[in-house]
Amino acid sequence: MGNSNCETPRRVAVPPKKSFSASLSSAFKETIFPDDPFRQFKNQSPSRKFVLGLQYLVPIFEWAPRYTFEFFKADLIAGITIASLAVPQGISYAKLANVPAIQGLYSSFVPPLIYAMFGSSRDLAVGTNAVGSLLLTSMIGREINPTENPKTYLQAVFTATFFAGVVETCLGFLRLGFLVDFLSHAAIVGFMSGAAIIVCLQQLKGILGLVHFTLETDIISVLRAVFTQTHQWRWESCVLGIVFLSFLILTKYYSKRKPAFFWINAMAPLTSVILGSILVYLTHAEKHGVQVIGHLKKGLNPPSVSELGFRAPYLMTAIKAGATIGIISLAEGVAVGRSFAMYKNYHIDGNKEMISFGMMNLVGSLTSCYLTTGPFSRTAVNFNAGCKTAASNIVMATAVMMTLLFLTPLFHYTPLVVLASIIIAAMLGLIDYGGIIHLWTIDKFDFFVSISAFLGVVFGSVETGLIIAVTISILRLLLSLSRPRTYALGNIPNSITYRSTEQYPAAANVPGMLILHIDAPIYFANTNYLRERISRWIYEEEDRLKSAGETSLHYVILDMSAVSSIDTSGIHMLEEVRKNLDRRGLQLALANPGSEVMKKLDKSKMIEKIGEEWMYLTVAEAVGACNFMLHSCKSTSKALTNPAAVESNTYDYV
Amino acid sequence: MGNSNCETPRRVAVPPKKSFSASLSSAFKETIFPDDPFRQFKNQSPSRKFVLGLQYLVPIFEWAPRYTFEFFKADLIAGITIASLAVPQGISYAKLANVPAIQGLYSSFVPPLIYAMFGSSRDLAVGTNAVGSLLLTSMIGREINPTENPKTYLQAVFTATFFAGVVETCLGFLRLGFLVDFLSHAAIVGFMSGAAIIVCLQQLKGILGLVHFTLETDIISVLRAVFTQTHQWRWESCVLGIVFLSFLILTKYYSKRKPAFFWINAMAPLTSVILGSILVYLTHAEKHGVQVIGHLKKGLNPPSVSELGFRAPYLMTAIKAGATIGIISLAEGVAVGRSFAMYKNYHIDGNKEMISFGMMNLVGSLTSCYLTTGPFSRTAVNFNAGCKTAASNIVMATAVMMTLLFLTPLFHYTPLVVLASIIIAAMLGLIDYGGIIHLWTIDKFDFFVSISAFLGVVFGSVETGLIIAVTISILRLLLSLSRPRTYALGNIPNSITYRSTEQYPAAANVPGMLILHIDAPIYFANTNYLRERISRWIYEEEDRLKSAGETSLHYVILDMSAVSSIDTSGIHMLEEVRKNLDRRGLQLALANPGSEVMKKLDKSKMIEKIGEEWMYLTVAEAVGACNFMLHSCKSTSKALTNPAAVESNTYDYV
Repeated sequence: MGNSNCETPRRVAVPPKKSFSASLSSAFKETIFPDDPFRQFKNQSPSRKFVLGLQYLVPIFEWAPRYTFEFFKADLIAGITIASLAVPQGISYAKLANVPAIQGLYSSFVPPLIYAMFGSSRDLAVGTNAVGSLLLTSMIGREINPTENPKTYLQAVFTATFFAGVVETCLGFLRLGFLVDFLSHAAIVGFMSGAAIIVCLQQLKGILGLVHFTLETDIISVLRAVFTQTHQWRWESCVLGIVFLSFLILTKYYSKRKPAFFWINAMAPLTSVILGSILVYLTHAEKHGVQVIGHLKKGLNPPSVSELGFRAPYLMTAIKAGATIGIISLAEGVAVGRSFAMYKNYHIDGNKEMISFGMMNLVGSLTSCYLTTGPFSRTAVNFNAGCKTAASNIVMATAVMMTLLFLTPLFHYTPLVVLASIIIAAMLGLIDYGGIIHLWTIDKFDFFVSISAFLGVVFGSVETGLIIAVTISILRLLLSLSRPRTYALGNIPNSITYRSTEQYPAAANVPGMLILHIDAPIYFANTNYLRERISRWIYEEEDRLKSAGETSLHYVILDMSAVSSIDTSGIHMLEEVRKNLDRRGLQLALANPGSEVMKKLDKSKMIEKIGEEWMYLTVAEAVGACNFMLHSCKSTSKALTNPAAVESNTYDYV
Repeated sequence: MGNSNCETPRRVAVPPKKSFSASLSSAFKETIFPDDPFRQFKNQSPSRKFVLGLQYLVPIFEWAPRYTFEFFKADLIAGITIASLAVPQGISYAKLANVPAIQGLYSSFVPPLIYAMFGSSRDLAVGTNAVGSLLLTSMIGREINPTENPKTYLQAVFTATFFAGVVETCLGFLRLGFLVDFLSHAAIVGFMSGAAIIVCLQQLKGILGLVHFTLETDIISVLRAVFTQTHQWRWESCVLGIVFLSFLILTKYYSKRKPAFFWINAMAPLTSVILGSILVYLTHAEKHGVQVIGHLKKGLNPPSVSELGFRAPYLMTAIKAGATIGIISLAEGVAVGRSFAMYKNYHIDGNKEMISFGMMNLVGSLTSCYLTTGPFSRTAVNFNAGCKTAASNIVMATAVMMTLLFLTPLFHYTPLVVLASIIIAAMLGLIDYGGIIHLWTIDKFDFFVSISAFLGVVFGSVETGLIIAVTISILRLLLSLSRPRTYALGNIPNSITYRSTEQYPAAANVPGMLILHIDAPIYFANTNYLRERISRWIYEEEDRLKSAGETSLHYVILDMSAVSSIDTSGIHMLEEVRKNLDRRGLQLALANPGSEVMKKLDKSKMIEKIGEEWMYLTVAEAVGACNFMLHSCKSTSKALTNPAAVESNTYDYV
C-alpha cells in the first residue's frame, strides 16, 4: 500500500452501464425484498421447493416436526401462566372497548391458535391490548353510542376488526411493512405513555363506581366528568379499588426485584379476581354500589359472519378505525416480537408477522373476536415463564376454552373495580418517564416528537397524538434533507487524511484551496440551499484569507463522499456552481463522486463540462493535483489569479 | 504526508460540546438564515446600519444613487419594448382569467412600480401570467360563475390576490422560502407543459369564435365542448386566427434564429393587435362573427379596497386560490429571476423577492389589479432589450399609464381571435418536450414525476397535477431515505483507498473482513431496513467465503463517512447490530464516524459499548488494525474464531 498522493491521480470510474429494466428490477428488489426471502429456494428440487414454500408461509410446519417433550413441558407451564393473565385481562380490556365481557375471552381463544400456525415469533403471546381497545371506544364510540346501540356498536367493532385484518394482510403480502417504520421509536414512546395515562384515567369510572361517564378520552373531559359528579362517588368501590391496586403494584414490584418470582406477578390478576369475587359473593357488596360483571354466556365463540356490516352509514367509520388500529397494533406487535427475538438471537420476518396478524384478525372477526395483537405485558410474562415455541399460545387457548366451556359462571360476582385495578397496574408500566428523559439527553428532536405525541394524546385524542407525531417525524426527515450540513475539510497533520476542521481542530486548511464536504444526497429540496451555502463558504473564506493576508483562493474541491445520489435539479445546481466559480476565476474539482452521481454526471454530459481531469478518487489526490498546478501554472495562467475579476465578482455578491 | 496505515491509529474525535441553546441557535441560523443576511451589518456605525437596513429592505435606495444616464437610455428602450408586449398580453390574460380586459392593463401599471422599489432582480419584468390567470378561472370559476356573477367573481379575484400577497409576504418575512423548493424542477417542467397545453386548448374558444364554452380545464371536457358545437364554428374567426398565429410563430422563429432582431418578436403582438383592429374597423367584421374587445374605460386604476370580500361564503375559496396561485407564481417568478441573475452574475435573495412579490400583490389587490408575478416571456424580452435595472419596469408602467389615459378607445375593435393567437404563440414556447426527454435520459424518476404532473394537469386539473407532482417528489425523498444503499468496499490496488467494489471492479476484498459503506443518515425510517440488510450482507459474504473456501469472516467494518446524522432509533439499531455480531463471533468496527454521530454515540454511552479502540479515523486504519489483530491473536482468542458459534447462529438466520 503506497502513498497514493505522489502518484498520478487515477480516473474516477463511471460504473458499468445497466439496462433500464435491470436497474428497475434491482431497485424493486431492494425496496420490496431487502431480506431476499427467495434465497433458500435457490438450487432446490421442485418437491423440496414446495415443502420450503409451505414452511415459509405456515411456519408451524417448520418447527412442529422438531418439537420435543422438553419443549412441551416448558410451553405448558408458560401457556398456563399466560392464560391466568389472559382471562382477567381479556375481560378488563373488553370493558375498556365497551364490548360485552365475554368478547375478551373469545378473543383469547381463536386468534392465538391462528398465530401459532402462521406466526414466526417463539415468544409472542396473543391477545387484546389496552390501546387498541381504547381506540375502538374513541373512534367508533364517537359515531355509535355503545350504551344506546350496543348491537350496532358491536357489529361496527367486528367490521373494524375485519378491515384491520385486511389491511395487515395486504401490508404483509405487498411487503409494505416499511410503512410501519415511519412510526419512529420516539413517537411510539410518547404515544404509548400518553395512551397509558388516558387508559388509567378511564378507569376512574370503575374505581369511583360512577355510572355515567364521558365518551371523550382527553384529560380535561375526563377530569371534568369525574369532578362534576363527586356526589356519585362510592366509598365501597374506592376502598376495594385501592386495596387491589396496592396488591397488584406490590406484587409487580416484588417480581421485578426478584425475577425468579415472575409468576407472582403473572398470577396476581387472577388472584385478585378470585378474591374480589369471593368477597362480593360473601358480603353482597353488589347491592351496595360495587358493580359486578354479571351473567357471562357459557360456550365457545359463536360465528359472527352475519354481524359484519358492509353497508353505509358506518362502513367508513369501521374502515378508518380498522386501518388505524390495525397499523398501530402491527407496530406494537412487530416491535415486541422483534425485541424478544433479539434476546434469543433468532430472526423475525416483519412481513410474515404482518400476514399472521392479519389472518388472526380476519378469522377473529368471523368468530366473535375483536382486535388482537401481541401485547407487551403478556409476551413478557410468556418469555419469563420460559416458553420455547408458539405452542404456548395453543396451551393458553385451550385453557381459555375450558374457561369458556365450564367456568364462566364463576365470574358473575367479579367486581368491575378489580378489573379497573388490573388495567391501571398494567398501564403504569407503560408510562415510560425514563425513556422520554433518555430521549432528551440523546436527541432533542426525538424528545420533541415524543412529547408532542404524548401531549397530543393526553390533551387531544389518541389519533391526534399519532398524527402529530408522524407528521413531525416526517417533517424532520424533510428538513434534514433540505438543510444538509456542509463543512470545510482540513488536512490531519502527518497524513493524507482530510477531515472536518470542526470535529478535528488539528486539521489544517490547505493554502489556496477550499475543501467542502457535502453531507447529504443532492435533491431538488436542497439545491437552492446548497448553492447559497457554497457561495457563502466561498466569500467567507475569501474574507478570512484577505483579513489574514494569506494566499488567495484558487480551487474549490467538493468532497462528494456522502452524496449518495443526485437528481436533475442537483445536476443543474452543480452546473451553476461551476459557472459561478468560473466567473470568479476559481476552479472546481470533485473528490470521490459515487457511482450514482457518476452515472448522472455522465448521462448529463457534466463530466465533460467539469472536465474529467478535475475529478479525483480521493480528496488527497485532488489536493495533490491542485497543489501541483498552483505551483507550476501560477505565473502563466492569468485567469486563475486575476485579482480584478475576483474583486468585481465579490462586489456583486454583497 | 506519510502513509498513515503504518502508524498507530489515531483517536476519533468527539466534537467539542456545545450548550443546548448554542446548538439550537446555530441550527436555527442554518435553517432560516443560511445566506447570513446580517453579515454586512457587522462592525458598522448605527447611522450606517440604518442606511444599510433601508437599502436591504428597499433596494431602490441602493441602486438609485448610482443610476447613470447610460443606464437610463438602456432601460428606456427595454421598458418601451416590454410595454408593447405588456398591453396586448395583459388584455389577453385578463380574458383568460375571465376578468374585464381593462384589469390586465391596470395590472401592468401599479405592480411594476412596487417591484421597482422592492425587487432585487435587475431583469425581471412584472405582469400577469397565463398559468395564474387560468388557475383563477378554474379555482374561483368553479364556485362563482364569471358570466352570471361577474361582480362577485371579480371581488373574489381581488380577495384571492390580496391573500396571495399576504402568503407571499409572510413566506418572505418568516424566511420560509425553502417551502417553494419542494416544487422540484421536474415537477415544474411537467406542470408548465401541461398548463401550456390547457391554456392553448382554452383559446380554441376564441379561434373558433364560440360563444358558449366549458368552465372545466381538462382536455376531455374542452374537446367535448369544441366538437359538440361544430355548427357554431365561424370561418371568419378561424381564418383570422390562423393568419395571425402563423405571423406570430414566424416572427418568433425568425427572432430565435437571429437574436439581434429580438424586437421583431417583441413587437409582433402589438403589430397583430393594430393590424387586426384596423382590419375589423375597415371590414366591420364584428358584425360577421368576429368578436371584439369593445368599450374599454379610460383612466387610471380605481381603488378596490371596498371590493375585497372578507365574509363567507367565498372567503375560503379566495384564500385557497390565493395561497395556491401565490405560491406557484412565486416559484415561477423566483426561478425566472434567479436564472437571469445567473447570466449576469449577480445575486438574488429569494426571501427578499418573495416580500417584493407579496407587496406587489397586496398593493395590487387594493388598486384593481389581479395576480402578478415575473413571467418568463416578458422577462426574457426585457433581458434581450438590454435592461440595466428595475427602472425598465418604471418605463413600462409609464407607457401603460399613457395607454390607460389616452389610448384605450383604440382597442375597441381589437378582435378576440388576435388575443387568442397571442396567448397560443406564447404558450407553445412553454411546452418543453426537450426538457421532458432530457429528464428521461438522466433520471427516470424525475421523468416519472414530470409526466405525472403533466398528465394530472391535462386530464385532471391544474391543482391535481400539482398535488400529484409534489406528493410523488416527497415520497421519492422518503423512499430514498427509507431504503439507503449499502455497499461493500474493497481495496484499490497499490493504495490505502477503499472504494465500492461495484463502481471500481479492481477494488479487492480484504480477507477476513467485510467493509460496508452506509450511504445515508440513519433514521427511524431506515433502521429496520439497515438491520436486515446488514444481516444479509453478512450471511451472503459467509456463503461466498464458504463456497470459495476462503478465510472466514472475523471483522465487520462499517464505513460511516456518509452517515451525516443518527437518531435514537438508529443508535438502538447499531446496538442491536453489535450484539448480533457479538453472538456470531464477529467484531464490529466503525470507520470515520462524523461529528453528529460521535456526539450521539457519546451521549448514549455507545462509545463504551462498541469500545473506543474499535473506532477509526479512516477505513484504511480500521483494516490495518484488524489485520494486525487477526494475525497476532488468531491462536489465542477463541471467541473470534469459534466455528461452532458461527454455525449455530447461521442456522437461526435462515
